Amino acid sequence: MAGAPIVASPWSRSLDREQERAIKRDAVLRAAAQLFNEFGYHATSLAMVAKRLQVTKPTLYYYVQNKEEILFECVRLGLELLRSAIAAAAASGGTALDKLKAAMHEYVLIVTREFGMCLIRVGEDPLAPESRKKLRRLKAELDHEFRALIEQGIAEGSLAPCDAKLAAFTLAGALSWIGRWFDPQGPLSAEEVARHSTAVLMNGLSPRPTAAPLPRRRKSNA
Amino acid sequence: MAGAPIVASPWSRSLDREQERAIKRDAVLRAAAQLFNEFGYHATSLAMVAKRLQVTKPTLYYYVQNKEEILFECVRLGLELLRSAIAAAAASGGTALDKLKAAMHEYVLIVTREFGMCLIRVGEDPLAPESRKKLRRLKAELDHEFRALIEQGIAEGSLAPCDAKLAAFTLAGALSWIGRWFDPQGPLSAEEVARHSTAVLMNGLSPRPTAAPLPRRRKSNA
Repeated sequence: MAGAPIVASPWSRSLDREQERAIKRDAVLRAAAQLFNEFGYHATSLAMVAKRLQVTKPTLYYYVQNKEEILFECVRLGLELLRSAIAAAAASGGTALDKLKAAMHEYVLIVTREFGMCLIRVGEDPLAPESRKKLRRLKAELDHEFRALIEQGIAEGSLAPCDAKLAAFTLAGALSWIGRWFDPQGPLSAEEVARHSTAVLMNGLSPRPTAAPLPRRRKSNA
Repeated sequence: MAGAPIVASPWSRSLDREQERAIKRDAVLRAAAQLFNEFGYHATSLAMVAKRLQVTKPTLYYYVQNKEEILFECVRLGLELLRSAIAAAAASGGTALDKLKAAMHEYVLIVTREFGMCLIRVGEDPLAPESRKKLRRLKAELDHEFRALIEQGIAEGSLAPCDAKLAAFTLAGALSWIGRWFDPQGPLSAEEVARHSTAVLMNGLSPRPTAAPLPRRRKSNA
């Protein structure tokens, strides 16, 4: 029941075909997300997606029904990636502060890639009400998990006391906005941006009192 | 040459008419911005704008040429408002930290109102390349002024040392994002959101060491 088959089986051909279809569908979604992010949703046509993949337009219809379905999937995948990153950080060791830092770092890396960027730059707005509703529910779950991490940190004292809901919105906003201006061809790597913006948000812009007074109390004769 | 005329002059009628036109044009832009923010740019028609103002569609053409011109003006006004708020804060008294706080507070108030919200929710993307270029130049100036305030604060020591460019992007992102989710009919006032998010960004999420060690060094015999 588990493990890869040792001998290649002719019956696995249907499985291979499904895997191949999934890989190709993923390529269609990625190419479309890149175009949406670059030219906007309304200015992107399926013909442009086909051209980028060097296939004919009818070929695309084997993988997706229409442009709306593509956007729905891109945004859903973006949300899914963010949610699993936050869940993974929450399940890792350390204080809630460590977990929040890890979640914020991953958040930036995701919004600088195709699907996460599409979630930020296009989002669910161009879709039909029912699709919008589904995606907004996923978004609300994401907000909830982010906020829970902040509440946990405040409760255990690893984070400063604050309004967890507004703090979560402020942090998520700062990190999301990176998906709006980040240029993968630009001078800064996603990693650098992630490190720096996480530090700014954790430490704040106000100078922190230096730790200098602390050692002084220990070495009384120095 | 200066001052308001004391006697109402019949020659001032043309001035009145111009003022009246400016007021009505402003109403057209505001109504359109509200609709763009609510339904999106592409889903908003001039007929909807006319309906909201209870005028006919041809009446609108006396004030604006087309939907593109309306969006251009809304985004330009949003940027203009932000720029003058930052300039006013920069020209006020106090440290760069005080100025930055004031600028951030005003920034939030602006992105929660029609034009600022339209800048954030729609932006220049749907416009023709030349219009986009003009608006992006304004945006770049805005970024520059925001960053200059941070650089000044780092230089004078009222702000913590950091990469001013990335810090400016992170702050502006956090504040801009508020325009995406803020609901004027919601439970929080723009004022509350402004106060809280400014505090979170200035103080950071990490707890700050209490000031307790500092007095200790002063009163050596207490």
